[in-house]
Amino acid sequence: MDRENSVIIKVHELDNVAVVVSSGGLKSGDRLTDGILVVSDVPHGHKIALAGIGANTAIVRYGEVIGYAAEDIRRGSWVKESLVRLPAAPLLEELPVVARVAPAFEALTGFTFEGFRNADGSVGTKNVLGITTSVQCVAGVTDYVVRRIREELLPRFLNVDDVVALNHSYGCGVAIDAPAAVIPIRTLQNITRNPNFGGEVMVIGLGCEKLVPERLVPERCSDCGGLCSPVLTLQDAEFHGFNDMVAAIMSTAEMHLVRLNKRRRETCSASDLVVGLQCGGSDALSGLTANPAVGYAADLIVRAGGSVMFSEVTEVRDAIHLLTPRVIDETVGRALLSEMSWYDRYLERGEVDRSANPTPGNKEGGLANVVEKALGSIAKSGSSPIVDVLGPGERIRRKGLTFAATPASDFICGTLQLASGMNVQVFTTGRGTPYGLAMTPVIKVSTNSILGKRWHDLIDFDAGQIASGIKTIPEAGHEIFSLILDVASGRRQVCSDRLGLYNDLVLFNPAPIT
Amino acid sequence: MDRENSVIIKVHELDNVAVVVSSGGLKSGDRLTDGILVVSDVPHGHKIALAGIGANTAIVRYGEVIGYAAEDIRRGSWVKESLVRLPAAPLLEELPVVARVAPAFEALTGFTFEGFRNADGSVGTKNVLGITTSVQCVAGVTDYVVRRIREELLPRFLNVDDVVALNHSYGCGVAIDAPAAVIPIRTLQNITRNPNFGGEVMVIGLGCEKLVPERLVPERCSDCGGLCSPVLTLQDAEFHGFNDMVAAIMSTAEMHLVRLNKRRRETCSASDLVVGLQCGGSDALSGLTANPAVGYAADLIVRAGGSVMFSEVTEVRDAIHLLTPRVIDETVGRALLSEMSWYDRYLERGEVDRSANPTPGNKEGGLANVVEKALGSIAKSGSSPIVDVLGPGERIRRKGLTFAATPASDFICGTLQLASGMNVQVFTTGRGTPYGLAMTPVIKVSTNSILGKRWHDLIDFDAGQIASGIKTIPEAGHEIFSLILDVASGRRQVCSDRLGLYNDLVLFNPAPIT
Repeated sequence: MDRENSVIIKVHELDNVAVVVSSGGLKSGDRLTDGILVVSDVPHGHKIALAGIGANTAIVRYGEVIGYAAEDIRRGSWVKESLVRLPAAPLLEELPVVARVAPAFEALTGFTFEGFRNADGSVGTKNVLGITTSVQCVAGVTDYVVRRIREELLPRFLNVDDVVALNHSYGCGVAIDAPAAVIPIRTLQNITRNPNFGGEVMVIGLGCEKLVPERLVPERCSDCGGLCSPVLTLQDAEFHGFNDMVAAIMSTAEMHLVRLNKRRRETCSASDLVVGLQCGGSDALSGLTANPAVGYAADLIVRAGGSVMFSEVTEVRDAIHLLTPRVIDETVGRALLSEMSWYDRYLERGEVDRSANPTPGNKEGGLANVVEKALGSIAKSGSSPIVDVLGPGERIRRKGLTFAATPASDFICGTLQLASGMNVQVFTTGRGTPYGLAMTPVIKVSTNSILGKRWHDLIDFDAGQIASGIKTIPEAGHEIFSLILDVASGRRQVCSDRLGLYNDLVLFNPAPIT
Repeated sequence: MDRENSVIIKVHELDNVAVVVSSGGLKSGDRLTDGILVVSDVPHGHKIALAGIGANTAIVRYGEVIGYAAEDIRRGSWVKESLVRLPAAPLLEELPVVARVAPAFEALTGFTFEGFRNADGSVGTKNVLGITTSVQCVAGVTDYVVRRIREELLPRFLNVDDVVALNHSYGCGVAIDAPAAVIPIRTLQNITRNPNFGGEVMVIGLGCEKLVPERLVPERCSDCGGLCSPVLTLQDAEFHGFNDMVAAIMSTAEMHLVRLNKRRRETCSASDLVVGLQCGGSDALSGLTANPAVGYAADLIVRAGGSVMFSEVTEVRDAIHLLTPRVIDETVGRALLSEMSWYDRYLERGEVDRSANPTPGNKEGGLANVVEKALGSIAKSGSSPIVDVLGPGERIRRKGLTFAATPASDFICGTLQLASGMNVQVFTTGRGTPYGLAMTPVIKVSTNSILGKRWHDLIDFDAGQIASGIKTIPEAGHEIFSLILDVASGRRQVCSDRLGLYNDLVLFNPAPIT
């Protein structure tokens, strides 16, 4: 990475554009140290042409073509969005899928965190009573009982962090036999198995819904072999009115709280981490600062034997040719392409294409199109080999770097990564988001220091310091790695947990509503 | 309706089945007063054969074919679900669409309620500060400020009933240019215009989302011509951290509360009612008790000059041939068929058909299939002519009976009817649901007294008394009409408001997630 006194950053020797990182942007008439005369104002985070770029010729960033010039672009001028024509997406059929020889990564040993070990071997980073539902009809009741449990029961169970309603909009009024219904159903099933719930999730059902409540907890209670059903059904004849229902739920909750309260943190290997990576509200610095630093941290976790998931199909699709050479075998490669092509067809059926991304805010942040966004996005995945590919909401199977196929929608991706078993999430943002999850800690990393400083109480780590030359990517990566261990251990609270800012679960349901 | 000492109910002279309404069901060996010998146990709410029905011949209820016998069915035996073969849906192309001469309904005058009249002429039944969002990212913040406003500000504004977060999962990570995106977008726009918010909805935006916040409040403030923007954008450079955002939101909220606090109930004509009708958790009694009684009340509202909406495309589709003869002109008829055929195609794209309905609970309640469910469902619409058809989320345009096309999903239908402008909802249920909305009162009507008694504090009106002969349909209809006026006036609180049981908004987004 070539730093021009922290005024512009050029990433690759082939690049004919660079990103302006000086906080005030560049003004027409400025002169850069290598003699380039700035011929138009260029805002912070946007691209400047390092050479003249003729109409219809390639605009190159990260050493990759991010588009073609819509007209002649002068050296030193602003390469704004309207000047960048979207190139075709990589053709999936033409991509070679070959196993890659895994690099001789040096294993990291001795890194640990303090977690809650579960009977199934997974490790929690929080100790939370989860109350899920088989249908949204009962959400008013779950919200009500969560308030009561928090006020009346929780103060007696000091080792339990919180009680959380896992409300969602699925369960009835949906085409439950549609082929795509497998996605929301397995997501709900697997969320109950997230390590932070310690196997103690309660289910509140209605009784007449399409999604039979018992489907959410396929396994029997290990203590009693199933006598203490975690499922309460509001339509059960035994409940005479609302107060009866509430009394039964409170009493079941207390039983779960007694068990959860026995959980204690113990020293666990960093290999027990399952870290979900996500970005939202990206800008042109995402691919220069936060994402490469998180990618560096991801490599450290993989080297320490842990699991890392990266996601967001629509935001890796245009850089897929850079991912296929990283799969460990042909099976994983085929699975990766299959998730891409499933999504291509899904968008086609809805009569849209990939140009629906990026958002207006991404564009204001300097991202011209989805190709540029994707190239920045995949930097989060670091350089480890891709050992597995999960369909949306599937549970993680392997240590190392996994591609968990999800939409890019922040809340849907978060919900699906929870289902896959994540116990810490790292979220990079350039424009800023108050996003948080009650079920697992979310570490928010800013791509630029303007945001990092302004949102001092909402951002957990400012990777903008990389652009200003204060930290290198490896330095920031090591700090993020340490921060993950601290947060996973409960030694450090993330901003969203301190303020209690939490987003609702949102399921990915590609099947019809009925 | 022929009442066999309240043991079975036969609706139409052509029917060869009747519904068992005695609470314990019928036992093999029982003899009915007309001499029919019961030859198998028949549960409460299920159907008994009044004559022998040969294999492949029609099973008739409501005078309509609800299916064909899968095998010979003996007189006096249980016509269970597995014996009823689903007939084909009415072919939309073959349905005649002709204007109907409106019946000489006697107009009802002098009926009033106490409502909050708005500048646009609409009338609210509650006085609520609504806080909407342009994207789910900010939901953690809206939930936080709603708690603070409720605790710190609301006690000073005694005329304001509540403050409600209008959270949803739309706004970003969605294909906002897809043809079907018009539905969720107009739904969000029109919800802000619901009469219960008095034109004072606040919008909290993030800043980089696809759905630009300003699209949610297209009209300027009438007081100041737009100087006091109701939109707050969290990414605005002026906000240094979370506390700054909260302070600005609290101060804007206070301004709205001052204005809302000036609203007073005044006597309004019943013609200002906009009543949404819905059913959820139906059983075989739905079409005999609650739905016809609500239909009777709907006719009274129409006669009093008010507006009534019925909905749920998938639950009227199979009875559409009974609705097309009720449209006031060909345009309305074509619009009705067009909504049906849109939904047929939507389900087809998702590789499902109408057999995804009814639910397991409906079936347990005695409903054999979607045809029988639909015939019972449309009873809610009474007998008034259909004056208009709305696409999902469109705002109501005419007095009288309107078909507002929505999915049957309770929460999605409720959300869409809110957008259409409903100020009271009437919800019938046989199996029972704690469903409620914070934005508008929901009157819950049970179809059977078993539920009505057991859920004494969750059901507002027990229409099961019709089956037991205590009330006639017109008597129950008049009582529901009075109840609507009382609830709309704030004189009577519905169960869900008394307990504070509220479901979240759920948007209908047929377009892809990105």
